[in-house]
Amino acid sequence: MKIGLVGLGKMGGNMARRLRRGGIEVVGYNRSSAIVEQLADEEGMIGADSLADVVAKLDAPRAVWLMLPCGEPTEQAIEALIPLLDEGDTIIDGGNANYQDSQLRGVMLADHKINFIDSGTSGGIWGLANGYCLMVGGEEEAVAAIEPVLKVLAPADDRGWAHVGPIGSGHFTKMIHNGIEYGMMQAFAEGLDLLHGKEEFNLDLAQITELWRHSSVVRSWLLDLTAEALSSDTKLEQIAPYVADSGEGRWTAIEAIEQGVPAPVMTLALQMRFASQDETGYGNRLLSVMRNAFGGHNIKDAN
Amino acid sequence: MKIGLVGLGKMGGNMARRLRRGGIEVVGYNRSSAIVEQLADEEGMIGADSLADVVAKLDAPRAVWLMLPCGEPTEQAIEALIPLLDEGDTIIDGGNANYQDSQLRGVMLADHKINFIDSGTSGGIWGLANGYCLMVGGEEEAVAAIEPVLKVLAPADDRGWAHVGPIGSGHFTKMIHNGIEYGMMQAFAEGLDLLHGKEEFNLDLAQITELWRHSSVVRSWLLDLTAEALSSDTKLEQIAPYVADSGEGRWTAIEAIEQGVPAPVMTLALQMRFASQDETGYGNRLLSVMRNAFGGHNIKDAN
Amino acid sequence: MKIGLVGLGKMGGNMARRLRRGGIEVVGYNRSSAIVEQLADEEGMIGADSLADVVAKLDAPRAVWLMLPCGEPTEQAIEALIPLLDEGDTIIDGGNANYQDSQLRGVMLADHKINFIDSGTSGGIWGLANGYCLMVGGEEEAVAAIEPVLKVLAPADDRGWAHVGPIGSGHFTKMIHNGIEYGMMQAFAEGLDLLHGKEEFNLDLAQITELWRHSSVVRSWLLDLTAEALSSDTKLEQIAPYVADSGEGRWTAIEAIEQGVPAPVMTLALQMRFASQDETGYGNRLLSVMRNAFGGHNIKDAN
Amino acid sequence: MKIGLVGLGKMGGNMARRLRRGGIEVVGYNRSSAIVEQLADEEGMIGADSLADVVAKLDAPRAVWLMLPCGEPTEQAIEALIPLLDEGDTIIDGGNANYQDSQLRGVMLADHKINFIDSGTSGGIWGLANGYCLMVGGEEEAVAAIEPVLKVLAPADDRGWAHVGPIGSGHFTKMIHNGIEYGMMQAFAEGLDLLHGKEEFNLDLAQITELWRHSSVVRSWLLDLTAEALSSDTKLEQIAPYVADSGEGRWTAIEAIEQGVPAPVMTLALQMRFASQDETGYGNRLLSVMRNAFGGHNIKDAN
Repeated sequence: MKIGLVGLGKMGGNMARRLRRGGIEVVGYNRSSAIVEQLADEEGMIGADSLADVVAKLDAPRAVWLMLPCGEPTEQAIEALIPLLDEGDTIIDGGNANYQDSQLRGVMLADHKINFIDSGTSGGIWGLANGYCLMVGGEEEAVAAIEPVLKVLAPADDRGWAHVGPIGSGHFTKMIHNGIEYGMMQAFAEGLDLLHGKEEFNLDLAQITELWRHSSVVRSWLLDLTAEALSSDTKLEQIAPYVADSGEGRWTAIEAIEQGVPAPVMTLALQMRFASQDETGYGNRLLSVMRNAFGGHNIKDAN
Repeated sequence: MKIGLVGLGKMGGNMARRLRRGGIEVVGYNRSSAIVEQLADEEGMIGADSLADVVAKLDAPRAVWLMLPCGEPTEQAIEALIPLLDEGDTIIDGGNANYQDSQLRGVMLADHKINFIDSGTSGGIWGLANGYCLMVGGEEEAVAAIEPVLKVLAPADDRGWAHVGPIGSGHFTKMIHNGIEYGMMQAFAEGLDLLHGKEEFNLDLAQITELWRHSSVVRSWLLDLTAEALSSDTKLEQIAPYVADSGEGRWTAIEAIEQGVPAPVMTLALQMRFASQDETGYGNRLLSVMRNAFGGHNIKDAN
Repeated sequence: MKIGLVGLGKMGGNMARRLRRGGIEVVGYNRSSAIVEQLADEEGMIGADSLADVVAKLDAPRAVWLMLPCGEPTEQAIEALIPLLDEGDTIIDGGNANYQDSQLRGVMLADHKINFIDSGTSGGIWGLANGYCLMVGGEEEAVAAIEPVLKVLAPADDRGWAHVGPIGSGHFTKMIHNGIEYGMMQAFAEGLDLLHGKEEFNLDLAQITELWRHSSVVRSWLLDLTAEALSSDTKLEQIAPYVADSGEGRWTAIEAIEQGVPAPVMTLALQMRFASQDETGYGNRLLSVMRNAFGGHNIKDAN
Repeated sequence: MKIGLVGLGKMGGNMARRLRRGGIEVVGYNRSSAIVEQLADEEGMIGADSLADVVAKLDAPRAVWLMLPCGEPTEQAIEALIPLLDEGDTIIDGGNANYQDSQLRGVMLADHKINFIDSGTSGGIWGLANGYCLMVGGEEEAVAAIEPVLKVLAPADDRGWAHVGPIGSGHFTKMIHNGIEYGMMQAFAEGLDLLHGKEEFNLDLAQITELWRHSSVVRSWLLDLTAEALSSDTKLEQIAPYVADSGEGRWTAIEAIEQGVPAPVMTLALQMRFASQDETGYGNRLLSVMRNAFGGHNIKDAN
């Protein structure tokens, strides 16, 4: 099988490698061309120098997989591809789009008789070695047509991909996956913070996280990675206490509100990241002022 | 009526004033004596230079009201008073003790036939002018005996004090009061933070808090004070984004856990104060490391 | 001054009364006509039997105040009014619209040279007697033109209305107000739940809420109403433990996510309402299954 | 090596089996004797009919491992063992005690020159097959003396046990482990609840949880068990939406408050369990009454 791959960054580049090593022909394009040449050299990828070139080097019915940042870049690539593609061709968005955008894109592409597949993709930088977990939304036939690609991207046991439902459901499932990830991460962070804060026991967090990997209830891949990271540094003094967040965590929290479902753990995990990012502290300044106003409590001066 | 008052700080000093102006004889003692002299001069308070002197200057059955920091200072004063007092005398703790400590003190003093009353006291620095809200726990007779004092401390309308239940229930009720206070304060802080963050509207928070004081659903004394504080400074640039917490907020959160009652708003209000106090940020550093470990996301360097 | 008033329900009907009693001429219209006749009889309101009739009975430049449910009804009324109105006329939306919808409506009406004002309105069923708190967004001139109306609707002291900013800012400010309201209500509910759950003290919640109204830090209008409600029934056995939510609580929580501001108290207050509404309990069933799966813990059977 | 094992319930019974299969001599005692006989028959365990009998059948220096419910039963067993044991003997508490109780027990036993070890034990009903994760607190020598036992209980790779610190630190580490477990479980429950609630996608939760087990970021043992449980039933209609909680979740939340560390995810996970257990709904009834009081909103009648 032959597939176009647009966007050869951290995720896309590794996917090209895994596909090539699994025997898939890949026509790859990236805005900056160095990685295109490198992957052509090292992996036998067919390089392309434009979207038109990608399309030209594929045979109908074509499949073009996008691994681009969500929002503008994905939107622009889809719009640019429409006039280049034919009826029956397929665009797969493997990035982290909002599922509602994906639903709209599906409708829009259907007008052009172009298939759309949304593939939520988990696995991060480890996907090259371990395979990716692929949550695929789209129409039956369109998904069936790219099965060889999905099988190679997924782990070797062929159980790491699934067609979960209609267009949008792949990105929806990935969004919820990330919401759970936020909650799990925050749970570990809180627990380790409490171990760290218990000075009288002088606990070794590298030892304990490694210990928990074996037969405990909290064993998990996130714990594996945490134990690995702590094994070389438990003090983390060079790391700023700043936690970035991405679209998917926010979308999950909003989805919960729109469904009217209480999801306090996912939501708080997100909000604690916000708190870590807060530079103004306006709300806290105000609380300090309020305490002073009713109780005469001391205010701590800003430096 | 005549009462002993031990502890003439921010709260106790004002209570001495209010009692004197309401016609109560006050025998006042404080560790540092300047305030004793001042209140003797200005308010006609009877100064005492030791706990023994307080007791000596009262007539049996005596009532001694403590306004001391909770924990050690209150504990020590009670222990020192026991041998000085007689059967039928009464100790009132008007400070912010843990209600379980108050229950134990009640039992211990009962062994000496000394009455104990726990009076949760709200009103802060405004109590001198407005009167205090007094939540009183104790035995019927003991409370009845100090009614003249309670009536003067409460607002002029005689509706700001109540005997709410047995020993411990006064401090319990005050503890819950403070838990509610934490939740209300955090609600205002979050809301005003969101108004402040909405740059496109360039809202005037002094104007809006003043506006809400009139017929809105959120009108409240805390809003009155907030509007007053913001009327002279809405930027709060001299105020550190650091919010202290006190025992009562923590005790309320623990009480909720022990009752098995969900109290997320009170608890989160407390936890956000903890977050404002966090100097190590260990949990957040860890989250940043975890994101890097699975997804290769950038870490922000400390300093 | 003369104003059109469309929507004479619980809020709109009382506003018609307050306007009339303040000397404003009101042309009132409501889908069901009984209330129109009643207000004409009782208050001297000028009745109208259609939007066209409202417009016909006003003199240019006209002002039409809408008090309709948000969403469809408001949208339809605005669309129906456009062809009936002239350049320089003004539509005021006094309902609870999403501020982003109001911003779009402002832009759309500006194309027709019709002014738009969004007035967030607080005060509930008590507004007739106490006046309303009005948070007004719009252009300077348009707002100035309806000042006589705002002054009558606001409390008698002329401090219950304010022009807070451009179109949208009125509904934005009202939205945040309601978010704060959610947090305050939940804080009181949690606190009273904990008082109620402390069986050993057998506390009287009617007594305590009344007590707190006098000089405590938590005194507030919501407390006044709560004390009033509890004075006749503290058991609440006839009341279902079901708490509805409205658009504004949800919008506030989403706004916080979009601003990237932690607002856990407002958000949790909303999510606890969701929990009270939950009929399926799917998440909790799942947790019970998970506990059984790893620890062999008992599962409680559904009846 | 030979060890006494007191308490042969769900956990203790399986531990006896694992120890026997690993070549450890076990003197086992249980209040109800049927399991003693069964384990003697099936596993060659040495049965005992009293604590005195356990002690009599061991050689000094003895080690007695307790697997009893926390609180009273553990307390009573320790008190009964003291006069039976000699200096230099060791009691190990492998149950879920509060670490502060364990610290006190350590001090008390030290007075009798008896060693105390607290072993937090994770692994649940799967420990027999997979081994247990053992977080061990105690003095170096005492722990070294029972290493053969720890090695057999832990997974075969000898990495599932560790001596984490002084007396108390084992139960402390296990407590935090369980706090993390609460957070992870709640994160999964919330995410799956949102997938379940998205009716338009008609998602198959058995498929998705199975899918996530392969290369996703959330892969974990809890997910393995959840996927297994959902594979036979995704509707969960026979399961009540009631989630029990245990001491460790509560202790973790209280520890966070006492450390002054924000741990909202662990705490909320606990509080949502409380909400699932709430039969009175008093707080929610009150909120419904408050909404009615200020806004005239409908109240839903109970039944």
